[in-house]
Amino acid sequence: MGGDIGPPVVVPAALQVLALQKTLHLVLVGNQEILKKELMLHQNIDESRLSIHHASQRVEMSDSPALALRMKKDSSMRVAINLIKEGKAAACISAGNTGALMATARFVLKTIPGIDRPAIISTFPTKSNKNMRMLDLGANVDSTAENLFQFAVMGSVLATAVDNIKNPKIYLLNIGAEDIKGNEQVKETAQLLSQSKMLNYSGFIEGDELYEGLADVVVCDGFVGNVALKTSEGVAKFIGKLIKDAYQRNFMSRMIGLLSIPILKRVMKRVDPNGYNGASFIGLQGIVIKSHGSANIQAFANAIIEGARQVEKNIPQRISSEVEQLLKLSKLEENKTSNHS
Amino acid sequence: MGGDIGPPVVVPAALQVLALQKTLHLVLVGNQEILKKELMLHQNIDESRLSIHHASQRVEMSDSPALALRMKKDSSMRVAINLIKEGKAAACISAGNTGALMATARFVLKTIPGIDRPAIISTFPTKSNKNMRMLDLGANVDSTAENLFQFAVMGSVLATAVDNIKNPKIYLLNIGAEDIKGNEQVKETAQLLSQSKMLNYSGFIEGDELYEGLADVVVCDGFVGNVALKTSEGVAKFIGKLIKDAYQRNFMSRMIGLLSIPILKRVMKRVDPNGYNGASFIGLQGIVIKSHGSANIQAFANAIIEGARQVEKNIPQRISSEVEQLLKLSKLEENKTSNHS
Repeated sequence: MGGDIGPPVVVPAALQVLALQKTLHLVLVGNQEILKKELMLHQNIDESRLSIHHASQRVEMSDSPALALRMKKDSSMRVAINLIKEGKAAACISAGNTGALMATARFVLKTIPGIDRPAIISTFPTKSNKNMRMLDLGANVDSTAENLFQFAVMGSVLATAVDNIKNPKIYLLNIGAEDIKGNEQVKETAQLLSQSKMLNYSGFIEGDELYEGLADVVVCDGFVGNVALKTSEGVAKFIGKLIKDAYQRNFMSRMIGLLSIPILKRVMKRVDPNGYNGASFIGLQGIVIKSHGSANIQAFANAIIEGARQVEKNIPQRISSEVEQLLKLSKLEENKTSNHS
Repeated sequence: MGGDIGPPVVVPAALQVLALQKTLHLVLVGNQEILKKELMLHQNIDESRLSIHHASQRVEMSDSPALALRMKKDSSMRVAINLIKEGKAAACISAGNTGALMATARFVLKTIPGIDRPAIISTFPTKSNKNMRMLDLGANVDSTAENLFQFAVMGSVLATAVDNIKNPKIYLLNIGAEDIKGNEQVKETAQLLSQSKMLNYSGFIEGDELYEGLADVVVCDGFVGNVALKTSEGVAKFIGKLIKDAYQRNFMSRMIGLLSIPILKRVMKRVDPNGYNGASFIGLQGIVIKSHGSANIQAFANAIIEGARQVEKNIPQRISSEVEQLLKLSKLEENKTSNHS
């Protein structure tokens, strides 16, 4: 029910993915009247793999996370996440209120043991052919070094399992390449990451290098990551507007503009967030994918596909066992140290 | 002597500005042999308004601020800043090592009374015709709410005096528009700014709105500001590369690309940092302009012009009197409160 458009985007996206992935089952959670009406607009629906689960409420974009938690216990969002908890669904995909979705997911599903806070991770295009994943993008605004270290572990698992990258290169977002640069949080995290034998920590990365394709995973505090993400959107929109204006300047430039449209469309497609939709909440005992609120059908379909991939790859379990192994390793280290002393 | 290229950029830029601004005097500070040789490449120099001040050392880009301060007391950077302290120069413009320049400027010139930390402020293009100034861009990585409030005061003074904006609109960079969003630092600052009667505080701004032209001044912590600045550079470079590649795709697109070059050049000029060169160190008892290390002649000339403008407008003095007035106001408030109680 969430997002700027709701069922008219979510339902066709679901049908599109169902047609592609023949073993997938989808449950539409929300107001059954509305959902049924929306479904009636479509044909050739494989009803054996699609069901409706009624939910009487809906979290509004303006609702606070606290209000959503307390007052909307039968919201589509809450019911969908409950289905994961009850083992009736493997993942939840929502385009709704991010804060409420995170609070609900955290409350119902809990974090993976050893992970203190869930994070928001998303995929970014780069100059090279491979994409990059960055976290946290806004769930945690005052992260400690331990939080950031855990983000690195989770990002590494996702890049390995979902993106099929061996030993993914992990970078820490900073404001300079030298060791002395950065705030205390970043310096401490760098130390933790350098000491880890399980992670392929590759050093600091600056904002101007994010799109160069150096990193497989970039780790940062949620405040900083959210600013980087949204600033990127802002710059892309700004340049798009400047290009449009420049081609509007006179008759000749308008003609050249017409010829350029298909070429520039290809460019804008590469930087269009709809092509990379599906920020994931990571660190929870369950899979929750957060679609952009303004996602179109294709974008929401991408979010569903990301969710299905994470189910297939057992992401929460993998993070859990990775964290367990890390804890064992650090205990071994501790024992070694205490034996030596 | 600083920057990627040094005198071959700085000297012609100085001569260019001298030719434009007939009352300006410039002092070239650095190795006099090198500077004289560089000057010999040029003609029609008005020697009555240009002099050389020898400095035997040079701060390298890799030098730490501490090393520059302790071991390079006769560096071009240090000597130029000393000239301000001694009243022999009104501003220093440098393309050198940012950290060393800031440490030296702070050590020699000191901050304005009432300002705890100097900041780096720069100008950004926007969709509207007016530019926006943002601070801090990297001088302070763990700013308090008081620091951020002082940045707002300084940004407001600069926008009023140099950009001729009446009651400049001040925004606080945040990751959401609602009051509950953001970290403690931002929430506290918002409260301080809302209470101020002297500042035109206009609320939160998100990364994707930075280039919309809403704000005259955007305030943020230096870590966040630096990430936003450099990420913007990275996105612009990325889109530039995508466009180039897209036009290279086949014969037809190459032809359209040739026609588009002048149009797209105009666009890239609008987002080119060289057009907006001259980040200022603000909050010091003296004017220090930091040019981009990779600035070309035009860009360095812009940095000199920004310095001259700040001299003309008496920026440090204006900030000082603004801060004094603020302190008086807050004392009045305190007195009122204590009289009431």
